[in-house]
Amino acid sequence: MGVHFGWWDRDGNSLRSNPGKSLRSALVILSCRALGGSSHQALPAALAVEMAHNASLLHDDIIDNDRLRRGRASLWSAMGVPAAILAGDALFFGSVHALTGAPHADRTVPVLLSAVQTLIEGEYLDTLMEKDATATLDDALDMIAGKTAALLSCACSLGAILSGADDERVEPLGRFGLLLGLAFQCTDDVLGIWGDPESTGKPAMSDLRSRKLSVPIALAINESSQPGERLRALYRRKESPTEAECRTLAHELESHGVREAVVELARENAQEALAALNSCDPDPVTVEELAKLTKMILERSS
Amino acid sequence: MGVHFGWWDRDGNSLRSNPGKSLRSALVILSCRALGGSSHQALPAALAVEMAHNASLLHDDIIDNDRLRRGRASLWSAMGVPAAILAGDALFFGSVHALTGAPHADRTVPVLLSAVQTLIEGEYLDTLMEKDATATLDDALDMIAGKTAALLSCACSLGAILSGADDERVEPLGRFGLLLGLAFQCTDDVLGIWGDPESTGKPAMSDLRSRKLSVPIALAINESSQPGERLRALYRRKESPTEAECRTLAHELESHGVREAVVELARENAQEALAALNSCDPDPVTVEELAKLTKMILERSS
Repeated sequence: MGVHFGWWDRDGNSLRSNPGKSLRSALVILSCRALGGSSHQALPAALAVEMAHNASLLHDDIIDNDRLRRGRASLWSAMGVPAAILAGDALFFGSVHALTGAPHADRTVPVLLSAVQTLIEGEYLDTLMEKDATATLDDALDMIAGKTAALLSCACSLGAILSGADDERVEPLGRFGLLLGLAFQCTDDVLGIWGDPESTGKPAMSDLRSRKLSVPIALAINESSQPGERLRALYRRKESPTEAECRTLAHELESHGVREAVVELARENAQEALAALNSCDPDPVTVEELAKLTKMILERSS
Repeated sequence: MGVHFGWWDRDGNSLRSNPGKSLRSALVILSCRALGGSSHQALPAALAVEMAHNASLLHDDIIDNDRLRRGRASLWSAMGVPAAILAGDALFFGSVHALTGAPHADRTVPVLLSAVQTLIEGEYLDTLMEKDATATLDDALDMIAGKTAALLSCACSLGAILSGADDERVEPLGRFGLLLGLAFQCTDDVLGIWGDPESTGKPAMSDLRSRKLSVPIALAINESSQPGERLRALYRRKESPTEAECRTLAHELESHGVREAVVELARENAQEALAALNSCDPDPVTVEELAKLTKMILERSS
């Protein structure tokens, strides 16, 4: 696990490398403070959500055959599939464990379990829709609601619960997290095609290479436009796309306004997210921080 | 999951095939009844333990590259690694979920979490000790205490807790399960070398082929006997053993009394298990059933 988190290399030598954005734990803490709780109260859930997220990354990298994570070798490629499966399993159980001894466990544990089940279903949808040339935008949005937004929503709900707030005030924060998660994944999908590998730590155009279904792909693949036809042909054929084919396609999709449409979808979801947040009578200072975080999510390059 | 459990084939056609022994759920139910509870009270834990066990089988078959399970294709080999990883993840979370809504969740959930963490550590030890020509009998016993006995002990403890008994009467049942688990794994290790593939549903001499550390191997590999030397050479070299080498080795180990020594170790652990069971003032009718189950474990061929 230490290798995965970038704390040390596989021989145990200390590293100081990119540990990830810790977005989810930040959301837990800010959601708790938004409803009058303290950062300290939020810690068990911050830990739980970060562990569940990293467990899913460990398993995802095996599933997607991704050799790079945060600019380093992914754990399965550094230490083998067995180590990565078991480290993921242990982190998943650790995430539940982080909540069981903490206050409000009777409310937090079911929220975590349900979010992770939705996450797993979203990831399974993701694998089923790979190379699928018939998927619609709704299919893609369903999938990202599961694989990304469920855990962000869970992060906000858990933080809110640990503040001691009642369900009526927790609900808008869960909705904020869900909409923010949709915005986050739209941005991620833009980076998956047009992101700079130097910043993302992943190969260039990785979603095109692996022919994943993502929001930009779903927007274009049913169109009769030139990139639409090209995409369908590419997703249906047996051989993997070449680097040159990916580059042409990325360029064409951008010229046809697909990139801008997804960026706009991210913006709309982020706006709705902030509206949901403001409906729960939150602490105004914390709202400002959450608004900054939302802006950062939209503008991020990694 | 239905494919894994043998409920249907991968096209959804109904099957009536071997669903596994359900040993762990039987232990939960009998442990609950041993302390005056009903079978009905034990059901949430029976479900939880069976789900956790099957989750670990799904991930183990990937880790060990095992293509056969219960005489059928293992899930990863039938439906791919992604499906098997995610089905295992979902079953792991399902196992916690089965307990959270049930009585005594504050006592049962920590027992399950701790057992599964021990299970995962045992499985990791197992992968580290593969092809290890220096492992001792203690190493092997530590490993099987984690990978097998922890969950059997958990099954008995959970059943006992759901009967409503206090910790003082739960503890001997946990100990019964732990010792029974050691006996179970000793028998499993005998079958892993000398079992009939028709009954086990696994390839013949599978533990020798994959050069796993098991109790019989640990007994022989540090000896200066002929099979000991042969084993060390085989576990150290790069190439996999041939079928003929496995056959010769299995025969020699048996001639040198290794099989009988492991059978005897299983018997001793089973006897101690029954002594632990009898120390908690259990219901005598249920004790008889648990004694029969113990006998079945020692004499099983699958």
